[in-house]
Amino acid sequence: MGGDHGVATTVTAACQLLKETSKVKIILVGQQDVIVDALRQQQMSVGGRLSVQHASQIVGMAESPALALRGKKDSSMRIAINLVKEGVADACVSAGNTGALMATARYVLKTLPGIDRPAICTTLPTMDTHTHMLDLGANVDTSAEHLFQFAVMGSVLVAAVDEIASPTVGLLNIGEEAIKGNEQVKQAAKLLQSSHLNYYGFVEGDDIYQGKVNVVVCDGFAGNVALKSSEGVAKMISHFLKKSFNKNILTRIAALFASSVLKQFRDRMDPRRYNGASLLGLRGIVIKSHGSADAFAFKHAIREAMIEVEKNVSEKLATELESILIERRTG
Amino acid sequence: MGGDHGVATTVTAACQLLKETSKVKIILVGQQDVIVDALRQQQMSVGGRLSVQHASQIVGMAESPALALRGKKDSSMRIAINLVKEGVADACVSAGNTGALMATARYVLKTLPGIDRPAICTTLPTMDTHTHMLDLGANVDTSAEHLFQFAVMGSVLVAAVDEIASPTVGLLNIGEEAIKGNEQVKQAAKLLQSSHLNYYGFVEGDDIYQGKVNVVVCDGFAGNVALKSSEGVAKMISHFLKKSFNKNILTRIAALFASSVLKQFRDRMDPRRYNGASLLGLRGIVIKSHGSADAFAFKHAIREAMIEVEKNVSEKLATELESILIERRTG
Repeated sequence: MGGDHGVATTVTAACQLLKETSKVKIILVGQQDVIVDALRQQQMSVGGRLSVQHASQIVGMAESPALALRGKKDSSMRIAINLVKEGVADACVSAGNTGALMATARYVLKTLPGIDRPAICTTLPTMDTHTHMLDLGANVDTSAEHLFQFAVMGSVLVAAVDEIASPTVGLLNIGEEAIKGNEQVKQAAKLLQSSHLNYYGFVEGDDIYQGKVNVVVCDGFAGNVALKSSEGVAKMISHFLKKSFNKNILTRIAALFASSVLKQFRDRMDPRRYNGASLLGLRGIVIKSHGSADAFAFKHAIREAMIEVEKNVSEKLATELESILIERRTG
Repeated sequence: MGGDHGVATTVTAACQLLKETSKVKIILVGQQDVIVDALRQQQMSVGGRLSVQHASQIVGMAESPALALRGKKDSSMRIAINLVKEGVADACVSAGNTGALMATARYVLKTLPGIDRPAICTTLPTMDTHTHMLDLGANVDTSAEHLFQFAVMGSVLVAAVDEIASPTVGLLNIGEEAIKGNEQVKQAAKLLQSSHLNYYGFVEGDDIYQGKVNVVVCDGFAGNVALKSSEGVAKMISHFLKKSFNKNILTRIAALFASSVLKQFRDRMDPRRYNGASLLGLRGIVIKSHGSADAFAFKHAIREAMIEVEKNVSEKLATELESILIERRTG
């Protein structure tokens, strides 16, 4: 386990969370000696709500998902997902290789009935609150039916987690007029219009952050591009802001006066607060943390898993999908 | 003519530019009485480097491109593009309906030999300077060959406009590893690798703003999503920043101290400075301004047209494409 920063980060996050809440039990899966070492540095030891499960193999961040699936049966990723399958753990949280995590989770846990492909879903900030977007990169060639399934999953997740009775669903497109867009998106719009979901219509990239809808549905290529471009712009703006306030002695004095405002602004924009994407459509809860997450960010990913367990997202998803399947068979 | 804000905006931009530089002649195409009225408000009159060409029809911002092409033969858009075709004007600048502009330009001017589909290309800010990205929405189902053509066009544009001998070209993808991405992107990568272009490899959404490459190539769906999402994030951040500095009397005092820094920051981030996208691949220069452009932004779009005329972008593009066609026939 570990992501880009290795075991120390995830172990630190786990230790902090155990101190902050009594609602969670954590099993650290990975190379035992490394984990125990990291725990020692945190002045923590195994026992009570904290345990360690040894894994002898590591899946590299750039490793092929297919190779990881076939050749790494004793990786921390595989063992953690096995624990979910066996009912020992309620959820798996990983900062590892996204493709390998998805492939392994799909193979071990299987998809829910009615779901062809799982999707990656995350929370994004909006002007007023937040929204959810999926898929963010699990699927690159997506049919209209897949987009429809993503809409169902996103809708159930938001209904459960945000306690919104009938979340609005928007389809990401490149123009609000029905004449634009590719075939899959146009067909998906028809499926959504005749469904029981609260379908809003097409939304464009900038509508995501306007918070026009509770759920933004798109194929994994567009979703990933939207997410990464957004991260890039935010980084650039923060770079320019820092540079502007660092220009000379006068601007640095201005920065001192503005420091509490700038801090509050930075906190509000902190992407770490949105860390933790759901792998939706599986028979179990799997959360993907950003590979570059620090302890603060990774803790947020674990909290996301806790919320999904608490709100019974998996069961609600299964129930909803079953009713859609029955509806289709009888309709 | 006019875009979202009508004739007043574009006329104001034209008048300001005529005063700022003697290098340009402007033909205002649209409803003559409305234009003359707008000119009067600017205390300008027709004559010298300024003329008016009457057009009796208007293409609506949400009108179907096909209908506009067939039914609006006396629209300002059509007449302005005709002027380019006839050699009366060197370039056409429009803030109108993108789809209709592209369809009309393609029908009237035709594409350059070797180009199947024109693409929309714009300048985007990066940490250090700027980059170019195409396509931004002219094409939604793009083959590898199309992506290759976009790369050639973007490369020629940047070489001419930015005077870079061999611009680096990146292919937008959802992972830097070759195993990710869709089929078109993977095939396009092969075409680029064996071409004479300075191909960098795959880039992700956040690399756009890092300025990793001079030209970012993508299909119109992904490009439009990247652009609009970026706009959305930038708007949200600026909203939060304003809100943070407006919170109470103390933060408003801090804003006063920081005002010159904040102004410089806002200027640097001003999207109006990047207004004016090129419709590349046509036998003539056509620049699309943002529909919501104000006079300052529209002036930038006209300046973009002036630069492309000055740097002979059309001729350079034709020459480059011809040499590629010959290479392919003989290779």
